[in-house]
Amino acid sequence: MKKFRTAVFGTGFVGRVHLEGIRRLGYVQLAAIGEPQIEKAQHLADEFGAERAEADYRKVLEDPSIDAVHVCTPNFLHFPIAKDAIQAGKHVLCEKPLATSVEEGRQLVALAREHKRRNATFHNLRYYPMVQQMRRMREDGDLGEILVVQGTYSQDWLLYDTDWNWRLVAKENGPSRCLADIGSHWCDMAEHVTGLRITSVCADLQTFHKTRKQPKGPIETFAGKTLRPEDYIETPIDTEDFGAVVFRMGDRTRGSFVASQVSAGRKNRLSLEIYGTKGGVSWDQEKPDELWIGQRNSANQVMVKDPSLLKPKARPFADLPGGHSEGYDDTFKQVFRRFYRSIGDPGEEPDYPQFADGLRGLQILEAEMQSHKQHAWVDVA
Amino acid sequence: MKKFRTAVFGTGFVGRVHLEGIRRLGYVQLAAIGEPQIEKAQHLADEFGAERAEADYRKVLEDPSIDAVHVCTPNFLHFPIAKDAIQAGKHVLCEKPLATSVEEGRQLVALAREHKRRNATFHNLRYYPMVQQMRRMREDGDLGEILVVQGTYSQDWLLYDTDWNWRLVAKENGPSRCLADIGSHWCDMAEHVTGLRITSVCADLQTFHKTRKQPKGPIETFAGKTLRPEDYIETPIDTEDFGAVVFRMGDRTRGSFVASQVSAGRKNRLSLEIYGTKGGVSWDQEKPDELWIGQRNSANQVMVKDPSLLKPKARPFADLPGGHSEGYDDTFKQVFRRFYRSIGDPGEEPDYPQFADGLRGLQILEAEMQSHKQHAWVDVA
Amino acid sequence: MKKFRTAVFGTGFVGRVHLEGIRRLGYVQLAAIGEPQIEKAQHLADEFGAERAEADYRKVLEDPSIDAVHVCTPNFLHFPIAKDAIQAGKHVLCEKPLATSVEEGRQLVALAREHKRRNATFHNLRYYPMVQQMRRMREDGDLGEILVVQGTYSQDWLLYDTDWNWRLVAKENGPSRCLADIGSHWCDMAEHVTGLRITSVCADLQTFHKTRKQPKGPIETFAGKTLRPEDYIETPIDTEDFGAVVFRMGDRTRGSFVASQVSAGRKNRLSLEIYGTKGGVSWDQEKPDELWIGQRNSANQVMVKDPSLLKPKARPFADLPGGHSEGYDDTFKQVFRRFYRSIGDPGEEPDYPQFADGLRGLQILEAEMQSHKQHAWVDVA
Amino acid sequence: MKKFRTAVFGTGFVGRVHLEGIRRLGYVQLAAIGEPQIEKAQHLADEFGAERAEADYRKVLEDPSIDAVHVCTPNFLHFPIAKDAIQAGKHVLCEKPLATSVEEGRQLVALAREHKRRNATFHNLRYYPMVQQMRRMREDGDLGEILVVQGTYSQDWLLYDTDWNWRLVAKENGPSRCLADIGSHWCDMAEHVTGLRITSVCADLQTFHKTRKQPKGPIETFAGKTLRPEDYIETPIDTEDFGAVVFRMGDRTRGSFVASQVSAGRKNRLSLEIYGTKGGVSWDQEKPDELWIGQRNSANQVMVKDPSLLKPKARPFADLPGGHSEGYDDTFKQVFRRFYRSIGDPGEEPDYPQFADGLRGLQILEAEMQSHKQHAWVDVA
Repeated sequence: MKKFRTAVFGTGFVGRVHLEGIRRLGYVQLAAIGEPQIEKAQHLADEFGAERAEADYRKVLEDPSIDAVHVCTPNFLHFPIAKDAIQAGKHVLCEKPLATSVEEGRQLVALAREHKRRNATFHNLRYYPMVQQMRRMREDGDLGEILVVQGTYSQDWLLYDTDWNWRLVAKENGPSRCLADIGSHWCDMAEHVTGLRITSVCADLQTFHKTRKQPKGPIETFAGKTLRPEDYIETPIDTEDFGAVVFRMGDRTRGSFVASQVSAGRKNRLSLEIYGTKGGVSWDQEKPDELWIGQRNSANQVMVKDPSLLKPKARPFADLPGGHSEGYDDTFKQVFRRFYRSIGDPGEEPDYPQFADGLRGLQILEAEMQSHKQHAWVDVA
Repeated sequence: MKKFRTAVFGTGFVGRVHLEGIRRLGYVQLAAIGEPQIEKAQHLADEFGAERAEADYRKVLEDPSIDAVHVCTPNFLHFPIAKDAIQAGKHVLCEKPLATSVEEGRQLVALAREHKRRNATFHNLRYYPMVQQMRRMREDGDLGEILVVQGTYSQDWLLYDTDWNWRLVAKENGPSRCLADIGSHWCDMAEHVTGLRITSVCADLQTFHKTRKQPKGPIETFAGKTLRPEDYIETPIDTEDFGAVVFRMGDRTRGSFVASQVSAGRKNRLSLEIYGTKGGVSWDQEKPDELWIGQRNSANQVMVKDPSLLKPKARPFADLPGGHSEGYDDTFKQVFRRFYRSIGDPGEEPDYPQFADGLRGLQILEAEMQSHKQHAWVDVA
Repeated sequence: MKKFRTAVFGTGFVGRVHLEGIRRLGYVQLAAIGEPQIEKAQHLADEFGAERAEADYRKVLEDPSIDAVHVCTPNFLHFPIAKDAIQAGKHVLCEKPLATSVEEGRQLVALAREHKRRNATFHNLRYYPMVQQMRRMREDGDLGEILVVQGTYSQDWLLYDTDWNWRLVAKENGPSRCLADIGSHWCDMAEHVTGLRITSVCADLQTFHKTRKQPKGPIETFAGKTLRPEDYIETPIDTEDFGAVVFRMGDRTRGSFVASQVSAGRKNRLSLEIYGTKGGVSWDQEKPDELWIGQRNSANQVMVKDPSLLKPKARPFADLPGGHSEGYDDTFKQVFRRFYRSIGDPGEEPDYPQFADGLRGLQILEAEMQSHKQHAWVDVA
Repeated sequence: MKKFRTAVFGTGFVGRVHLEGIRRLGYVQLAAIGEPQIEKAQHLADEFGAERAEADYRKVLEDPSIDAVHVCTPNFLHFPIAKDAIQAGKHVLCEKPLATSVEEGRQLVALAREHKRRNATFHNLRYYPMVQQMRRMREDGDLGEILVVQGTYSQDWLLYDTDWNWRLVAKENGPSRCLADIGSHWCDMAEHVTGLRITSVCADLQTFHKTRKQPKGPIETFAGKTLRPEDYIETPIDTEDFGAVVFRMGDRTRGSFVASQVSAGRKNRLSLEIYGTKGGVSWDQEKPDELWIGQRNSANQVMVKDPSLLKPKARPFADLPGGHSEGYDDTFKQVFRRFYRSIGDPGEEPDYPQFADGLRGLQILEAEMQSHKQHAWVDVA
């Protein structure tokens, strides 16, 4: 089996999940962890058996033995690091959003094509087995022609004005927060599953907390929920807590979604519902192993994840037998497996989201932001 | 106990539910059924023990012994019949929509005030015990300040172009179908539960089937699902199958809903989710005895309908002990009970939706229709 | 339409539900309410439009104009009243348990046969639309040969030792409480749906509270949950709070159920699961409009109650269109409708549980009690 | 960080899950895979980066550099291999059942004690975060005194007589199948969570298929569902498809469970319900991230897995933030992490099931088998 050598840049919540996910593939060697906080990098290198830790990611890029890198830094660093990595000849798997502007996204797509490097934007949520089942049902015509697409991505981790995170800082996060961070996952999944494009949007954003209480020390993403800081700075917030969007997918299909980081009780609820002329499907990330299948003239179905019941093309995304749950971590493994396989086989058609998909997300986001500012419908580029 | 005499006009699906619901109140006597199809009226009078059947509702209005009338006819007749009834001195309980235009609605509100008659627009769905629980939680401040209101009213009974019903004919139904028929229930419930007003809307409507196959003979509402007609007329459709709406409730609260009559597998799913600064609630008409209560810092709750757990002001809407389900029919009983009590006690503040609430629904609907036509945001009058 | 005249004996929780249910049938006149607490009887007669109230049920039985009676008294009175009523020539609908011993049950079956009177034991829970759907699926062979039958009937209204009710007094209730009151519903439904007979049982009963705090004044069934009495009597309890049963249905089919009145959070959860060689079904009374259908080689189904999806023979038990919930009250209407129809048509095969079914329940109960006492398997007579 | 070297014996379904789970711990090196089918072993060694593959596990045991071994072979080999491994000085993590008889189990417990080796019986299902939450709630007294314990472990992978697997062969599997394979998981979890012991049982077993169609070639566990063999041997089956058990846990607590491998639609449903004097809990392995918490005097709760909501002692079993699902694979990681930590720290109290727990399971199983044979209650040793 062909072996690969890789590096991970960034060691926040998601960097750690990447590290563990890479380990599950016995044929990918963790060559390096890049992270300015070097002690943290060294600690993780020890825990996950990485060969070395570097404060400066450029040092890692100079190592010719390394095939690929995972970019798991704060958003504003995605673009410069991915750019440098591609130019250093590395294959790049970049966390979403791919960049903080459409223009940056376009550059990365062009660079990757020019350098013929494998490139992925990490919309991992596509790769729950049941999401792939929806996709394949649509491809096989089980849903008929798509009429209605609706849903929500709701969380509650930023409900209180005492909740704080680097994502609240536009400089590190980019100009959109809720729609960029979770709305983009929803749109990516909606387009991936339906095979249709969002062509115009009318978006309404809201920043419920105009200021938030910023703690003086650094905190980890998501850790804010149990944090009880002694000392805050009242800080103005210029990114949205919430967005509601109605959209069109061409002349016929219509849809709507809500993204929110302030919906009490919803921890990580990405729900996607698709209704076509022959049937409907509904899926919720908080119960990822279940797929609801709606039917007009017979009983609805609730499929429990079971490889023997999945469409042949969805089956390879489920590693465990029926009723043995596969979770969030497992979607990482599924993407990594396909990403490295495609590095090893230049002829293979990638079955993972590429930079072009990341750019697509940025274009939708740009239209949403513009729609909100203009209080009007806007076409997606 | 004071006794009342009443009449029901219209004998379709909902007329029949009114008849049975009235019977459950032992102190309301069914004096008459009014319906142009006189055999049908006579048959129902026999089944439900009504004293007489009349083809012409005016005959019934002439009877001075009758206290109140229920208007259950096709929509376009609501206005003229309700108007005549009020002018004849009857108390009037009218099915929704109250009328087919804002102007008609205004007239009815004025007439009822002038004649001092009890008046109800039949938004019965408010009166599921768990909807009242949501309302009382909000009133007690359990949800804090309302931030997000979202949901859907989805059905599938008009999914196929072979589905036919009088509601598809704008002349009988009014100019809006999906938003008027079910969207109006959603908006009424959202305003009732939150205590807030929808102040502006951006709506996108769609008529997926531009023509439908109209059977040559008459059919009952909902019966189309099993109908297999030999002969159809291809008939143009000018009312919407679907509407998606983003809306604002004042400066702070934001929301969105989807109404659809073509969503395969959804039989009668009115789901309403409300998120405030302290907690969230979510309810689905297909499981009316359950209420989800979302919390950020403790486990979410799922309340099973149980009078001993309900807020004191919600408790009178639940007649049965915990876990004994109360359904759609039971909401009729709850409204009827309060409507007749208020006739008997002129000093009682009505706890049911009045003509003014019906008018409110027509105003929202008008804004939605206008928004769609203008492809732009529109303020609600 | 043929009209009937009826009377209700007993005015506790379930008596009231009978009264309201009878009213829904316009062709059944409430001739009398019999109840020793005459003011209560008069109050209900006024509320439900009954012609008269009587303290002594015998007075009612003397009225030759009355066709039928509903026996809704405490359990120990079922036998004497039902006996007198049959002998007075009335058709009898008796609440369950039919009697407090097998011997009494046998007498009632014989008397009803001798006097050729219509007779019903009120196992109304069979008549939820989805329970009838299970029954008809089994009859049509959709489940194949039945292998496994399991489930539970769990409530929590007697969890605390401060919970009190007449059912706790063996003299009024009979020697078994939990198995007689709710276990009997489970067994009746299991036999009704499977068409099989429970042939032997091993039962283990438990009285968790050996004494309870009895309030000095009378209280209504179920009202104990909010009661805060000032004064209790510590009273020994000799009926069970709980029973677990493994059973056989002939040589092949195996099963098990748990009945409990002390299971916190379960309000009225009768769940029944049946697995056959071709498929499985599962139903829960707390969500009566849903039926889970299990399949090995395709996705499971969750049927929302919808007449157009029900088996033809289950369809008449659903009065409302898809997704319009039908609840506990509605099962009463379904039984009453069939009971009175069968009075009017002596040739009609009853489609409701008769005294013979009530006797059957007493026989299973007797075997369960004996099994517990002997700490051994016992055959059902 | 201390590093460990380990080996895995057996490469069926569960062996593979062990391999991948071990990889997730960066500080455990896969030194060897032992498996008579040497090509399979070599293939997996390549895929998971193991240093070598051996047909004979004894060769691996001879390697003094290896600290620990995972025994993932068919059941009948657990005892001899675990015995040899302990005697070779290895720490041993053995799949359940620990052995095929109580006597073998006793020997292993004694050997491990004598050789002072860390020993685990792999009841991994305890280590879903929500199962640990139940355990800690009970320890903290949130449930009060336990009254009722009930549930089921139901699967459908052996529903048809054409389903075949090595587990059907008593010689490889041991004398009990359904109760040993899945019933033992249920009992282990019930005792672990309640902290109580099953003291007596009445069990009823059933072999629905007295013969099965055995395919002539070898097949993988669970693969039978899609297999379409050309040629079968009609083979007598002497292990059970189903078991129903009523049990006592001391003088007060009562319970019941059903284990079945023939329940259509149930893929891997381990449901455990526990009701105490203060509250109840219910959990289902098919939705592992949810915990139902039943309450008498307030709304029930449904906790979504969220570290910030978990009891402090349950929190370390959840690696991901709220609403990010953790599945079956993740329970392996949790056990492995604690097992290796305890090897590195001889003073650490093991927080994983040991051989003694495996022996306990065998004792319950023995009582169940004896109870079935005697058709009577039997005390657990």
